[in-house]
Amino acid sequence: MALSDEVRNLGTKLSNWGRWGDDDQLGCGNFLTPAAAQRGAAAVRTGATFPLALDLKADGVQIGQPAGRYNPILTFTSMNERDKMAPGIWEGTDDLVTMSTCAGTHIDALCHISYDGLLYGGRPQSMIRANGGSTWCGAETLPSIVTRGILIDVPRTLGVDRVEPGHAVTAEQLDAAVSAAGLTIESGDVICVRTGDVQWYHEGDRRRYAVGQDWRTVGLGFSCVEWFAEREVAGAFLDTYTYEVMPPESGNWDDLLAVHMVQLRDMGLLQGQNWNFEGLAEACAADGVYDFLLVAAPEPIVGATSAPVAPIATK
Amino acid sequence: MALSDEVRNLGTKLSNWGRWGDDDQLGCGNFLTPAAAQRGAAAVRTGATFPLALDLKADGVQIGQPAGRYNPILTFTSMNERDKMAPGIWEGTDDLVTMSTCAGTHIDALCHISYDGLLYGGRPQSMIRANGGSTWCGAETLPSIVTRGILIDVPRTLGVDRVEPGHAVTAEQLDAAVSAAGLTIESGDVICVRTGDVQWYHEGDRRRYAVGQDWRTVGLGFSCVEWFAEREVAGAFLDTYTYEVMPPESGNWDDLLAVHMVQLRDMGLLQGQNWNFEGLAEACAADGVYDFLLVAAPEPIVGATSAPVAPIATK
Amino acid sequence: MALSDEVRNLGTKLSNWGRWGDDDQLGCGNFLTPAAAQRGAAAVRTGATFPLALDLKADGVQIGQPAGRYNPILTFTSMNERDKMAPGIWEGTDDLVTMSTCAGTHIDALCHISYDGLLYGGRPQSMIRANGGSTWCGAETLPSIVTRGILIDVPRTLGVDRVEPGHAVTAEQLDAAVSAAGLTIESGDVICVRTGDVQWYHEGDRRRYAVGQDWRTVGLGFSCVEWFAEREVAGAFLDTYTYEVMPPESGNWDDLLAVHMVQLRDMGLLQGQNWNFEGLAEACAADGVYDFLLVAAPEPIVGATSAPVAPIATK
Amino acid sequence: MALSDEVRNLGTKLSNWGRWGDDDQLGCGNFLTPAAAQRGAAAVRTGATFPLALDLKADGVQIGQPAGRYNPILTFTSMNERDKMAPGIWEGTDDLVTMSTCAGTHIDALCHISYDGLLYGGRPQSMIRANGGSTWCGAETLPSIVTRGILIDVPRTLGVDRVEPGHAVTAEQLDAAVSAAGLTIESGDVICVRTGDVQWYHEGDRRRYAVGQDWRTVGLGFSCVEWFAEREVAGAFLDTYTYEVMPPESGNWDDLLAVHMVQLRDMGLLQGQNWNFEGLAEACAADGVYDFLLVAAPEPIVGATSAPVAPIATK
Repeated sequence: MALSDEVRNLGTKLSNWGRWGDDDQLGCGNFLTPAAAQRGAAAVRTGATFPLALDLKADGVQIGQPAGRYNPILTFTSMNERDKMAPGIWEGTDDLVTMSTCAGTHIDALCHISYDGLLYGGRPQSMIRANGGSTWCGAETLPSIVTRGILIDVPRTLGVDRVEPGHAVTAEQLDAAVSAAGLTIESGDVICVRTGDVQWYHEGDRRRYAVGQDWRTVGLGFSCVEWFAEREVAGAFLDTYTYEVMPPESGNWDDLLAVHMVQLRDMGLLQGQNWNFEGLAEACAADGVYDFLLVAAPEPIVGATSAPVAPIATK
Repeated sequence: MALSDEVRNLGTKLSNWGRWGDDDQLGCGNFLTPAAAQRGAAAVRTGATFPLALDLKADGVQIGQPAGRYNPILTFTSMNERDKMAPGIWEGTDDLVTMSTCAGTHIDALCHISYDGLLYGGRPQSMIRANGGSTWCGAETLPSIVTRGILIDVPRTLGVDRVEPGHAVTAEQLDAAVSAAGLTIESGDVICVRTGDVQWYHEGDRRRYAVGQDWRTVGLGFSCVEWFAEREVAGAFLDTYTYEVMPPESGNWDDLLAVHMVQLRDMGLLQGQNWNFEGLAEACAADGVYDFLLVAAPEPIVGATSAPVAPIATK
Repeated sequence: MALSDEVRNLGTKLSNWGRWGDDDQLGCGNFLTPAAAQRGAAAVRTGATFPLALDLKADGVQIGQPAGRYNPILTFTSMNERDKMAPGIWEGTDDLVTMSTCAGTHIDALCHISYDGLLYGGRPQSMIRANGGSTWCGAETLPSIVTRGILIDVPRTLGVDRVEPGHAVTAEQLDAAVSAAGLTIESGDVICVRTGDVQWYHEGDRRRYAVGQDWRTVGLGFSCVEWFAEREVAGAFLDTYTYEVMPPESGNWDDLLAVHMVQLRDMGLLQGQNWNFEGLAEACAADGVYDFLLVAAPEPIVGATSAPVAPIATK
Repeated sequence: MALSDEVRNLGTKLSNWGRWGDDDQLGCGNFLTPAAAQRGAAAVRTGATFPLALDLKADGVQIGQPAGRYNPILTFTSMNERDKMAPGIWEGTDDLVTMSTCAGTHIDALCHISYDGLLYGGRPQSMIRANGGSTWCGAETLPSIVTRGILIDVPRTLGVDRVEPGHAVTAEQLDAAVSAAGLTIESGDVICVRTGDVQWYHEGDRRRYAVGQDWRTVGLGFSCVEWFAEREVAGAFLDTYTYEVMPPESGNWDDLLAVHMVQLRDMGLLQGQNWNFEGLAEACAADGVYDFLLVAAPEPIVGATSAPVAPIATK
């Protein structure tokens, strides 16, 4: 088998390689103009803030699948102690954290996933090096996001608490939600797609959250990709672990991670997982206003392939 | 010797213990009201954004003094590889970061520094535990900051490029800068104090930045503490390593970290170091506008005693 | 409740504090004389070697209980790459390991477990500091072990494959095994106590190995402690996770870890867990020879409270 | 330029690929027979033991060159605390270490250095994977060494305290030392080559130890390689950082690490650095006996490309 033609052709069609110059590492982050920031600020009405990051902790969202990802390990390098070189009566505590950069709420660096040996912009995979980190599209090249965010509340649109395992969010569902909210997407907006799947994590079923039921997970379907591209959204973020639906809708396992492949490698779209929209969604449902100021500044870890982020929505 | 009466008395005078209830862990974060967020959003004019975080990297601001602090170590757990459990043609790269939570641009958790055995709110130091992290005022209790920020550009106010080693920023300098900017501080604003000291780091003199010259560093003087308290600022952030001036202005080495001690333990003020105001300051000087939307969401690492943060100013 | 009188009194009776001088950090390591090393070398007959360490890997013996212990995390800092400063055609790979020092096969530093606020030798617990590590009885003070080892094969002595959950190894069982082997313990020998419990780990039941069945584990009973002391053994090592039986034989939960407490804090006995005697035991059963050269050199990690070790028996 | 013919030809000449079967991962570790272990045990006379590992600590031998290598970072996950699940009066301390596997005294895994895309045995470099570690010749495949060790004391042979920067140890010097010691190398012996260079480290000049003077370092010259091969030594270990002399004796920078390349990739020779022979050498000089029992058990970190080791010599 091989990658489906549908996937390969859409990657070609939506490719942004060269669109912002040959050396571009921002991708759809280029849509984040000052006008978008102004539009975001103008979306602040009540001033209520909603942190969208999950707590980072030893029993966080990582469960060991995929292998090699680790929840934060917090350890201590001083404990109510003074430094040997510093006199005084003060006492301080310092700590160290070891974590996968994609351990919790994060944004993918554009080099995170690729195919056919090439990264975003057509650069070779060999530009990712272990010694010093990726020299192309590392986390430090991700833009700070200050723009208007729009919540797509899929289960509320569908009239359910949360969607079923294997549910693929579709372009139609995105349209329905935006339309119901009375909004029009503009270039540089970011989309927050709520599936409710993070409730499993909140309820303590970490395994169900991470790998779904019978390995069927909830996430974006392939039709969303072109929808994002047509509207020039800067980013799309989800409250799921896998981001896109699994198994692939095509039934072709070689299409696994097709959404990642086209969005990251071809389009350069900002995307990320483990965003927590539960509180925000309650508030949006209560006042019927689904747009807000969205600020998300990825930690600029040089050469990293994902970036921890603590996004905030302000209504 | 012992802590100076001046320090001890000011700690008592400015104590916020109990002000917001006995169980309060927010401290001056309580000033971050929806009104403050609205005021912040209203300060957006051009939509220009200024990331205030330094890059996180192996040759970052930590130089080994104080001992036990480490710049980020980035390592790889997959390298253009597929997961064993996941078929397909995609290839991905995952990485792990190990770093002091105070390694780069950060906000101190309120438990970070204490004295006389007590933390903010009068809790015992023993509430900081290595196993699981601090159970009082850990990083996950820090509020997300969405408010108006005000830049205090000390060297520009003084007509110099950057201040001299051992320079203590004074309440008078704060007043002069605010007055020159034509602004009035309001409850819940945050103050960004630029000394220009981070230029040493940008120029590659990491040692000069971290420990100053002849162990004389640049930072807040003790008179600033009451100034912040009177104005009910939510936080004060600096572009230096030590935050407050060293050695102590009193000449009493037992007063080392007096500003930290009173602000963190007694007041519960949000404070942080290694913020980079160089680009923002240029822009403020150019248009004469020194207030802006300041958003800073600390990474919610449960039980940590500092939090990495990537703040953004939007003018 | 409190510590049982039996435990407290035995601790006092067997205390080695001051026996080798007030500053002694070796404890029963003092029994490791040149004569013991010669006796060990003389126990080599066939030259067959038996590595006693378990592999160190991500799915090792740690299962998250107790919390805060981590199996090795192996990550890469270069991957078939050259160093930027070093020309040539060579390509190299470097890696980094993050692990609890007690993650796998290890020897406890004498400061690892204590009670009543005091460490071995009567030093205060505050001599363990996070910044720089323990300043008393850290892993770097552990002696290299070169001596005669004696295998006590408990299940073979009892005629079973492995002992039942909650089985406490007793002094009588030790005597029976030594007697059956036709050996006499001499000062400075080390005892390798096989229970067979590590088979659970080899068979993939990591949980059973770590916490036993219904929280009943296999290990030393309290009567072994005096037996070791009377014979002046330098160390005693087990093929179990908890080392001593759980729950405590006395039925008093305050006696939990009584063997650890007396052996480490009072006697200064070398002890360690997760040693793998399966192959060695087969060979000893085959030739009926239960003594051998035992070499175990703890990794000298300064200030650590356990030390990884890769022991070798040579028959 | 390219690799010198001399190097390439010697690699071909000394290749052990296939010598012990196509799947062999032991290389010259195959020389470590029971007879060698017996010979080692027979070399014990006084029973005096000499630990050969350097302490593992934050200010160890790594100085940041080459980049990506880190001294041990010791941090704490409990500090005189009880586990939440475990009652009682005991108090314990657990810690975590993060370190390059080659940070201190170590043995190189055979996959550590390669050239022309192939590892020992002709396997492709792609068998080293970040996710899960190397699948060929990882540290867990290294043999435990129990054999006779022979000290080659180069400076004593030359009548100096330590050799000069840029000094290449030659086959002639090896011969002279062995001859002076009245010994004959046998198959399976290991060679401990003392240059005295580790004295710089002991004296606190870490930089001089790691990178030498004017980037000229002390170590094996190329003529040693064939000498080791002819004598079927199992391993050769040095008290230097770079192991082999730098710059290359040929003057051709493409020959950098030629000794590594031939010994690891072609011969599969056990080799390692940062071994400390100072105390052992004093004792050998005092009694004129230069052979001893050498036991070195590499930590079996699955998939790692080097292994920490704490070797012990027993005279």
